[in-house]
Amino acid sequence: MKKITVLGVTGSIGTQTVDVVKHHREEFEIIAMSAGRNIELLEKIMVSVHVRHICVQNKEDKEYLENKYKDCYFYYGQEGLITIATLPEVDVVLNAIVGFAGLLPTMEAIKAHKDIALANKETLVVAGHLIIPLVKEYGVALLPVDSEHSAIFQSMNGEHHGDISKIILTASGGSFRDKSREELKNVTVEQALKHPNWSMGAKITIDSATLFNKGLEVMEAKWLFNVDYDDIEVLIHPESIVHSMVEYQDTSVIAQLGTPDMRLPIQYALTYPRRQPLIGGKRLSLADIGTLHFYAPDFKRFKALELAYEAGRKGGSMPCVLNGANEQANALFLDRKICFLDIERLVEEAMRAHEWVDHPSLDQLLEIDQWARNYVLKRVGEDECKQ
Amino acid sequence: MKKITVLGVTGSIGTQTVDVVKHHREEFEIIAMSAGRNIELLEKIMVSVHVRHICVQNKEDKEYLENKYKDCYFYYGQEGLITIATLPEVDVVLNAIVGFAGLLPTMEAIKAHKDIALANKETLVVAGHLIIPLVKEYGVALLPVDSEHSAIFQSMNGEHHGDISKIILTASGGSFRDKSREELKNVTVEQALKHPNWSMGAKITIDSATLFNKGLEVMEAKWLFNVDYDDIEVLIHPESIVHSMVEYQDTSVIAQLGTPDMRLPIQYALTYPRRQPLIGGKRLSLADIGTLHFYAPDFKRFKALELAYEAGRKGGSMPCVLNGANEQANALFLDRKICFLDIERLVEEAMRAHEWVDHPSLDQLLEIDQWARNYVLKRVGEDECKQ
Repeated sequence: MKKITVLGVTGSIGTQTVDVVKHHREEFEIIAMSAGRNIELLEKIMVSVHVRHICVQNKEDKEYLENKYKDCYFYYGQEGLITIATLPEVDVVLNAIVGFAGLLPTMEAIKAHKDIALANKETLVVAGHLIIPLVKEYGVALLPVDSEHSAIFQSMNGEHHGDISKIILTASGGSFRDKSREELKNVTVEQALKHPNWSMGAKITIDSATLFNKGLEVMEAKWLFNVDYDDIEVLIHPESIVHSMVEYQDTSVIAQLGTPDMRLPIQYALTYPRRQPLIGGKRLSLADIGTLHFYAPDFKRFKALELAYEAGRKGGSMPCVLNGANEQANALFLDRKICFLDIERLVEEAMRAHEWVDHPSLDQLLEIDQWARNYVLKRVGEDECKQ
Repeated sequence: MKKITVLGVTGSIGTQTVDVVKHHREEFEIIAMSAGRNIELLEKIMVSVHVRHICVQNKEDKEYLENKYKDCYFYYGQEGLITIATLPEVDVVLNAIVGFAGLLPTMEAIKAHKDIALANKETLVVAGHLIIPLVKEYGVALLPVDSEHSAIFQSMNGEHHGDISKIILTASGGSFRDKSREELKNVTVEQALKHPNWSMGAKITIDSATLFNKGLEVMEAKWLFNVDYDDIEVLIHPESIVHSMVEYQDTSVIAQLGTPDMRLPIQYALTYPRRQPLIGGKRLSLADIGTLHFYAPDFKRFKALELAYEAGRKGGSMPCVLNGANEQANALFLDRKICFLDIERLVEEAMRAHEWVDHPSLDQLLEIDQWARNYVLKRVGEDECKQ
């Protein structure tokens, strides 16, 4: 029986994790879970799976729940997150918190010798230089939950790292893959939220449309799989059937394919190295699909991708700036405060304005993240709102 | 240094094996090799790689070579094949003999504790029930050299057999994949020999056009990977880029892709579990290729595939009949003695006329193979020649 803490249980990954666990009750048990402010959904989940330790964002919500449910332990805030991520009986922490907030609980979980199933890519993007040495020091497993990174991980099964020549990250191209740069100027939030293949949370769906999501994935892949940026390629593949690939030095390419279903990488992170039936999972039929398309991304059209490679190659504090600025700009777009193309413009401006630091500490990262967010807010305050 | 015997060195696989070995002289050495009657090519190979033990088909050729090359040992015939397949210093026997003739040397090599790199699919098709127990008994490795089986083998790296749910064998569809059954009536040998993607020997190129090759591969896969026929699917994929796939019980599909190049599976069988640069190998660019197509085979259009599944499911002596009858009919077609569609008709007639034997011994197999060939020859003698 694998005992799990789920961080971010009310999000898209979180609810699907609950679904996976419910179908494999003899293998997995959720010991602890965290939610933000969606208490209604949290309570629904509490009905469907009995979980003893629960953390929420606010003290008020904690007290409300405490009064209502007498057989559970409740926690709140950052401190609460760290408590449930480090409970002695927990084997693996599945981190599905969105954004930079996922970093600290991950670090503490590693130090408490927990294996990490990582859906929070920002952790590695921002602090890969701190996380990877920690993973090695404490000898824990770091398992990807992102569909692309799970695909790469699966495509490396039984292979030697020294034989890898290239990682090929596939990208659907997001909601706007067929739009010209001119057309992108006037797209709406509603249009951006319609992802062609995947059903995901709002932040990541916008990141898919800008391609910042793919950029963050490139950086995550660098850290997860210890490869150079020159050996990570992005390939547009509109059908999202080939979830990613690995090329080896003998020119052989191993790929992982499947119907788009996030429950597969979630479950694989929990069952690895074995596999279990995916209850309700749809088997892939390439004969039914018929045709798969692939093309190289246009780095001028997808500026975010260029910025991500630039930030990744620069390293140090630059990925933290890109990530923080993007998180803020993404939220502003969702809030209809800026236009779609402003997202990448603001991120680039933040990168240009940043005073670079090599090998930033956790405290420095927190500071730089805040600086990047404030920078974006300040620039928008100066600008005319365009939407 | 891995020491190799290459059986069938003057064929397409044989010459490409020499190419691979020449590029990795510090890793591999060909100790022994066999050829049929292409002595001119054999002598050319002897100039490019120094090989000490050489077997040919005929006594006269052996004597001719013996007089010319004083520093080599020469052998001939079946006995000679067995001698060079079992030399004490040899680690691995790469068997690229075409057809049923490859069976006996393979069995003797296994008994002499040699690992087997198997390009000769007929060995497993006809005698899988004898070979597989022998492989287990002597604890040798049996490594596939066929591109599809190598792809499946690579797609199973690091996985557990119990997690496999299906093997998906891709098929280019051969030279006539776009022709109707009506159009197939009058195709010529020249047309059949033009394979769209692979450069291979004449026998296998005809087998690709009839799809008997894919049928034999289905049977080979059954033995190599210990799966039921219900769990082996054939998928037409005209581009021959996805070389085959494995579906697991969690719906995840792992695939191996690459530019069509037989040197890759040859080399992988020799370097496994590691990989080496494939000198002169062309890296795959899916962006350049752009589109991959897949569709289910039409079992009415490709009768050979239906016959192969039937023979495989029946088991016992039936695959031996299918194989023997096909080898003979294939040769008759190449000899312009019969029409293209006569091949599958004659194979089916032989299967219907055969008195089935369960678990045939090697001697019985030799007899049944001969019976099937004679049956085809006799039927053609009775018929009008149609080409």
